[in-house]
Amino acid sequence: MRHTATIQALQKLLQDRLTTQPEILTAHSKDLSWHPSHLPDAVCYPISNQEIAAIVAICNANQTPLIPYGTGTSLEGHILPVLGGITLNLSKMNHILGFNEIDRDCTVQAGVTKFQLNKFLQDKGLFFAAGPGIDASIGGMMATGASGANAVMYGTVKDNVRGLKVVTADGKIISTRKRVQKSSAGYDLTQLFVGSEGTLGIITEVTVVLHPLPKFVAIAVVSFTSIEEAIEAAIQLNQSDLPLAMLELMDEAIINAINQYAQTDYPVQPTLFLELHSQKENLQVFYETIQRIVQQHQSTQMRWATETAAKEELFKARYDAIYAVKALDPEAVVWATDVTVPISRLAEIILKTKKALVELPLFGSLFGHVGDGNFHTILLCNFEDAQAMKRVKDLNHQMVLWALEMEGTCTGEHGIGYGKKEYLQMEFGESGIEIMNKIKKALDPNGIMNPKKIF
Amino acid sequence: MRHTATIQALQKLLQDRLTTQPEILTAHSKDLSWHPSHLPDAVCYPISNQEIAAIVAICNANQTPLIPYGTGTSLEGHILPVLGGITLNLSKMNHILGFNEIDRDCTVQAGVTKFQLNKFLQDKGLFFAAGPGIDASIGGMMATGASGANAVMYGTVKDNVRGLKVVTADGKIISTRKRVQKSSAGYDLTQLFVGSEGTLGIITEVTVVLHPLPKFVAIAVVSFTSIEEAIEAAIQLNQSDLPLAMLELMDEAIINAINQYAQTDYPVQPTLFLELHSQKENLQVFYETIQRIVQQHQSTQMRWATETAAKEELFKARYDAIYAVKALDPEAVVWATDVTVPISRLAEIILKTKKALVELPLFGSLFGHVGDGNFHTILLCNFEDAQAMKRVKDLNHQMVLWALEMEGTCTGEHGIGYGKKEYLQMEFGESGIEIMNKIKKALDPNGIMNPKKIF
Repeated sequence: MRHTATIQALQKLLQDRLTTQPEILTAHSKDLSWHPSHLPDAVCYPISNQEIAAIVAICNANQTPLIPYGTGTSLEGHILPVLGGITLNLSKMNHILGFNEIDRDCTVQAGVTKFQLNKFLQDKGLFFAAGPGIDASIGGMMATGASGANAVMYGTVKDNVRGLKVVTADGKIISTRKRVQKSSAGYDLTQLFVGSEGTLGIITEVTVVLHPLPKFVAIAVVSFTSIEEAIEAAIQLNQSDLPLAMLELMDEAIINAINQYAQTDYPVQPTLFLELHSQKENLQVFYETIQRIVQQHQSTQMRWATETAAKEELFKARYDAIYAVKALDPEAVVWATDVTVPISRLAEIILKTKKALVELPLFGSLFGHVGDGNFHTILLCNFEDAQAMKRVKDLNHQMVLWALEMEGTCTGEHGIGYGKKEYLQMEFGESGIEIMNKIKKALDPNGIMNPKKIF
Repeated sequence: MRHTATIQALQKLLQDRLTTQPEILTAHSKDLSWHPSHLPDAVCYPISNQEIAAIVAICNANQTPLIPYGTGTSLEGHILPVLGGITLNLSKMNHILGFNEIDRDCTVQAGVTKFQLNKFLQDKGLFFAAGPGIDASIGGMMATGASGANAVMYGTVKDNVRGLKVVTADGKIISTRKRVQKSSAGYDLTQLFVGSEGTLGIITEVTVVLHPLPKFVAIAVVSFTSIEEAIEAAIQLNQSDLPLAMLELMDEAIINAINQYAQTDYPVQPTLFLELHSQKENLQVFYETIQRIVQQHQSTQMRWATETAAKEELFKARYDAIYAVKALDPEAVVWATDVTVPISRLAEIILKTKKALVELPLFGSLFGHVGDGNFHTILLCNFEDAQAMKRVKDLNHQMVLWALEMEGTCTGEHGIGYGKKEYLQMEFGESGIEIMNKIKKALDPNGIMNPKKIF
């Protein structure tokens, strides 16, 4: 067994909240990505900041890798223990510590999930709007720098955090900022730790920003004859005064999968899903604005819902998308990737990508949070087909190159993790990476914090 | 002469764009704050990123301090050459490098000022909304982590930046992020350099976010019988659905100064200044909402303007405030300070501060960007009156302590600079400061970048 001294010391500290049971190790060896699994040597379930500080100190003294783990839903291998070590499962750190109605913020332990938080908030007229559609942990979202479909109105997790508590690599507990709307006091440690993917410290508490629940919500699903027209319509919708809380593009491949999976009858065409949030009863005006814009772009159908049941039916399709694709071939491995470009280049990169996708000898689809220039491809892969896999990897590579040429980024919301390290190098160049590396070495000189990620 | 080798090498590089003329050195020895002046040994006027990289390399090789300088409008001594050295005046770096209408962004050299940028944008339907009311440089605002009165709607400079070009302390030019709306690629170097006050590198280019110009604007000026009622009304206004682009509180001391300075006739009472920005013609509805709320809080008068001339007249008072206070005693030194607390604690700290202000043996006033929990005091001081100055310093100290006790920050938008270093220590504690120090040492091992600031 590796790291015996560490595990013995941790066992003394945590007792039965440390395990080396094979099935538990296996459950922590993989995320939602296509990256191959790696086993940790032990999994810990801490219950307090002090305990995490003690764990970090033990790992640091023994130079044992430490990998923070929320819900295991990362998409680029962030939580894989590629060098073994200790996985720090934060699921027992799931308490809501403070709620401030007037200040519209809430302080939670890192293991609190998005759905858990919003359930807590449901009778308070407020909600946490950022992050992905799945039930990830708040700490994990922050560590990833996640975003999600509502970012077009409410921003990414970076825009929805007041401050963090972090256990640093030398085992100290720090607060990155006070519970205020703005501050210009010192370096912005909050935003340094957000998106640092566990490589600089362990995020243990998060103070998030809350938004008022919208009083009026409407959903529109609009079909188009071509992806060009759908994107042009999306850009125009985005620059109108509509209160867009979501503006998603799905290609006909995903729509077809949804129709099969959910017995829906959407036209098998490029489709925009819109969600509008308003505090005022003026949805009819919005309906007319949307209709006017989409008709200029040869829309073929527009479905509209303002009643809860009808909205849910329309949106089920949106949330089912990933399961619908997966259901096409339950044996296949899902390969999801994302890039972001300036909105003005979005049509160009999506068209190039779409052309490449249809030439692949496997299922390839794309969908996008087109309101902010971010889009994803979802492929169904068979890793045993080496020739096809080479083409998948080439496409992934090509998409990033296109994005970088267009002043875009290699990842808009999935992060670098284990899978996009070479692209970070391309994006920032040697000098930019050197600055990041200097910060990493300064804050984690022994390299114990989630090693082999980002760099 | 100090730093002779540096100055000789820089002279060779810059020729007549380096000066040691006493009057120029004096002009760079002071900002807008009360802090005593310090002369630089030379002032440089670089014209390109490459030139700045060469200057940094020379200063680094000779361990000569380097102080970036925008418009000299900092409020905590940020640009004071407290150890001498070279002041880098960025006023010749004043070109607009790129404008993207669809992406709503603009890339500018650091020396471009806010007014210059907005003049460039005036026929394009877009504007740069963040930052203070004075004509500071974009680079300086970013370095300070500035904010300003419109932050309540448009956010601070932190929220209005896509990416930076920075010359690091080892003389390399890096881009902190691509020109995208969101990215989760690597550490957030953008937000690390924003607010770093020139202590980690020189910001040379900024890609800023632009907002559509509002189609309809209205101004309201509302007087109240007490500061408590004004604050309660402000909190309620802020939590309504009003499109507030500004929500400012001024106490009766400032109103009195304005009346004298600008021959206005505002009731000498605590007063709220509101600015509403809307894309739709529904100002009458907003008027009624404001009136309903302020009447619940014993407002005594409400002036309202939607026509340009009338708006300008009302707002002249707002922008004249600092000059009006200064005019009360042209010999006095203005002492301005700011803190931010959670909105829920704002009334409490403002009342405590107000009570302390009226007991001072000198002019003391307060005003606040109350929409985000931030407020300022403005005092008129005579540094020769040692007893009075002790009381001013005690009040400044006490305000910060109150803010910190209330989960607030020692500065919301002025920054730490030279004046608030001890409070940064209090706010972050030893462990937090240690993390910042590690970053500073990693990125600027020779300590040449704006030394003695922040820490």
